[in-house]
Amino acid sequence: MEKIRTIEIKKSIFDANEIDADKLRKKLKEKKIYLLNLMSSPGSGKTTTLIQVINRLKDKYRIGVMEADIDGDVDAIKIAEKTGVKSVQLHTGGMCHLDAEMTEIGIDGLDAKDIDLLILENVGNLVCPAEFDTGAVKSAVILSVPEGHDKPLKYPLMFQVCDLVMINKIDVMPYFDFDMDKVKEFIHMRNPNATIVPISAKTGEGIDKVVEYLDKEVAAWIK
Amino acid sequence: MEKIRTIEIKKSIFDANEIDADKLRKKLKEKKIYLLNLMSSPGSGKTTTLIQVINRLKDKYRIGVMEADIDGDVDAIKIAEKTGVKSVQLHTGGMCHLDAEMTEIGIDGLDAKDIDLLILENVGNLVCPAEFDTGAVKSAVILSVPEGHDKPLKYPLMFQVCDLVMINKIDVMPYFDFDMDKVKEFIHMRNPNATIVPISAKTGEGIDKVVEYLDKEVAAWIK
Repeated sequence: MEKIRTIEIKKSIFDANEIDADKLRKKLKEKKIYLLNLMSSPGSGKTTTLIQVINRLKDKYRIGVMEADIDGDVDAIKIAEKTGVKSVQLHTGGMCHLDAEMTEIGIDGLDAKDIDLLILENVGNLVCPAEFDTGAVKSAVILSVPEGHDKPLKYPLMFQVCDLVMINKIDVMPYFDFDMDKVKEFIHMRNPNATIVPISAKTGEGIDKVVEYLDKEVAAWIK
Repeated sequence: MEKIRTIEIKKSIFDANEIDADKLRKKLKEKKIYLLNLMSSPGSGKTTTLIQVINRLKDKYRIGVMEADIDGDVDAIKIAEKTGVKSVQLHTGGMCHLDAEMTEIGIDGLDAKDIDLLILENVGNLVCPAEFDTGAVKSAVILSVPEGHDKPLKYPLMFQVCDLVMINKIDVMPYFDFDMDKVKEFIHMRNPNATIVPISAKTGEGIDKVVEYLDKEVAAWIK
């Protein structure tokens, strides 16, 4: 294809964020709080998945949720109504991601001292949140079937930094050209150790495997 | 819901981008090039929609495409193969959006002087690209049915800055809880003048209306 030329227009980003993130992680370890950073594109099903997971884990752990959004508070209200756990809305005021400093402000605001498992639902964005370590113990991403199996190729950093990848909306697999084998291959190209779990937050299929993963993680962190 | 508290963690962004964007728009007017900035979440169907639109307009206008991606060049190759028009891949090197300066670098790189309609496929992201005027004459966004009809409420700026909103993947409407009337209402709350066109880039349904919109726009700009 001689018509294709590629132009590099990279800009550099410098940040003291990594130092803040490591400090926050140490603080969370001392306080025995497991922080999970949950990311995805808009509309991949983060909130619905969280409700399913929380309702299966809330009798075992004290859970809190921080809902980061540019505006609005529908997600925090939904989480509180459907699960009864402590939740707080974080407004980013147009910012496309959370960094460690913003996450810590959220944790202080939630008054998280009596919490075992704290989940941060990051801004719906497959690009920027991947660049900023929030101080979470682990990061997870949801990719939904309608988005296509090629996304790990086009948004590589997101899949590189996530330990848990949930493939959501598998209930609509018959209506999309989505190749589950290929998506697994593409994800493992970015992160050979990623745990990949196909789920349907709508029907509940696969949620038990997510719960199993989180249960092991939290138990090991807070023991 | 007394459990919900909202914490503002806004940061300010200062930029000379608007001045650059206005300069670029004037330059494009002089050169009789109509620039469309096309945005959406990852996987909403930008490239597939473009192929459908370009193949219906390429006999009337000289068309060029700039494909902005963090990495890879699959989209630029796809456009060139499926439409035969001039295309270039822009690598943002991790950046989540294009600004006017980056867009101008792309235009120079494409050598766009013999082009009537130039389409910029922005980075797949419903947040950041909305904040940066690229210098385009108009901006368009694609929202796909699986993403949900609530997105204009959660990502208001994107729908506020776009003149054309395409609702894609209407062929899978029966399998999702997507309310077309509500999405139209939510979009018009943000932008009462937005042109909303339901489409299926897969089946071609509704594409003629997008073509009609662009045809009028381009003809008026380059006359």
